[in-house]
Amino acid sequence: MTKKIIIATGNQGKVNEFKELFSGIDLSVSSLKDHWNPLPDIEENGSAFYDNAKIKADWVYERRGGVWALADDSGLEVDALGGAPGVLSARFSGEGATSESNNEKLLNDLKEIPEHLRTARFKCVLVLKTGPETYLSAEGTCEGVIITEKSGSRGFGYDPLFIPQGFNETFAQISSEEKNKISHRGKAMRALYKELQKIID
Amino acid sequence: MTKKIIIATGNQGKVNEFKELFSGIDLSVSSLKDHWNPLPDIEENGSAFYDNAKIKADWVYERRGGVWALADDSGLEVDALGGAPGVLSARFSGEGATSESNNEKLLNDLKEIPEHLRTARFKCVLVLKTGPETYLSAEGTCEGVIITEKSGSRGFGYDPLFIPQGFNETFAQISSEEKNKISHRGKAMRALYKELQKIID
Repeated sequence: MTKKIIIATGNQGKVNEFKELFSGIDLSVSSLKDHWNPLPDIEENGSAFYDNAKIKADWVYERRGGVWALADDSGLEVDALGGAPGVLSARFSGEGATSESNNEKLLNDLKEIPEHLRTARFKCVLVLKTGPETYLSAEGTCEGVIITEKSGSRGFGYDPLFIPQGFNETFAQISSEEKNKISHRGKAMRALYKELQKIID
Repeated sequence: MTKKIIIATGNQGKVNEFKELFSGIDLSVSSLKDHWNPLPDIEENGSAFYDNAKIKADWVYERRGGVWALADDSGLEVDALGGAPGVLSARFSGEGATSESNNEKLLNDLKEIPEHLRTARFKCVLVLKTGPETYLSAEGTCEGVIITEKSGSRGFGYDPLFIPQGFNETFAQISSEEKNKISHRGKAMRALYKELQKIID
């Protein structure tokens, strides 16, 4: 029997990535917008990426029991800022934050920090709720540095300021195919996929 | 090939429970004491049961890569205390805490609270690290109430003060077999086992 899975996100870009990833296994994929209108506003008040992803997966599972629920949470950890913005990545510049205002705040907070100390990493945690009491989760990390000026127009969020290790272009400059190979989300998705293949009946 | 699994606990009682549970599947089970002497002191500074279990599973996995690592974390959440002692259950009464001193503190903190408001639950989270980036986890909850005087001599921790829903004896009075059927750890273990069966090659 085809297993049903709901992706707990309103971000169509992420939904498409998951649909593509899962195309090889017997899964029927839908997302929040196929089930709720307007989109629910799920409060993500966890103190770690895992907690927030779990909150979203639980929220969906409780309302659509029996259907698997998959959620992701991700963000940027900057060493010179003690790991900030972390779980607050999307809301770094406060109320009404946009990628623009978040990037501005990041550049400002780092303006005294020399290049070699601007190390950072993107992290992604995926949580799949497979039953009332069980979860499958996967993590992905992508190490890099924060540059001093935005570069590139692809991607979203902090991508124009982040150069992954071993590259000399930002996440906003490299192709989405290239990015997917090395990105935190790409890594987490492939790790989850590998586990998932084993448990699909 | 028989899969190897290390249980990240120094508690022989728990190890035995896991060994018994896993006897039906092709797993070679060992525990901390089979690998480390003296036993490592893994700092559990997470803010949730999941975090602490993950800290222990990660610790073992990093040092014994390739071998699965399974950890549990559990505790008591008392509604009238806003969910305390929670992750601090084992250290509730501070430095050098024992079951005795923890139970005393719990009774004292609840002494003004009438019977019908002394609701509480034991929770258990199991985290199994199956690869560098993947985890399988399971939760179990057992609802009940905290009574006003210790009763029974079995079990450990807060068992003599906890009467599970639907019973009129404490966890320290019922048989371990009976307890295992309804306990937080029993439930989490069976949920994990069910998932595990699917992914054992």
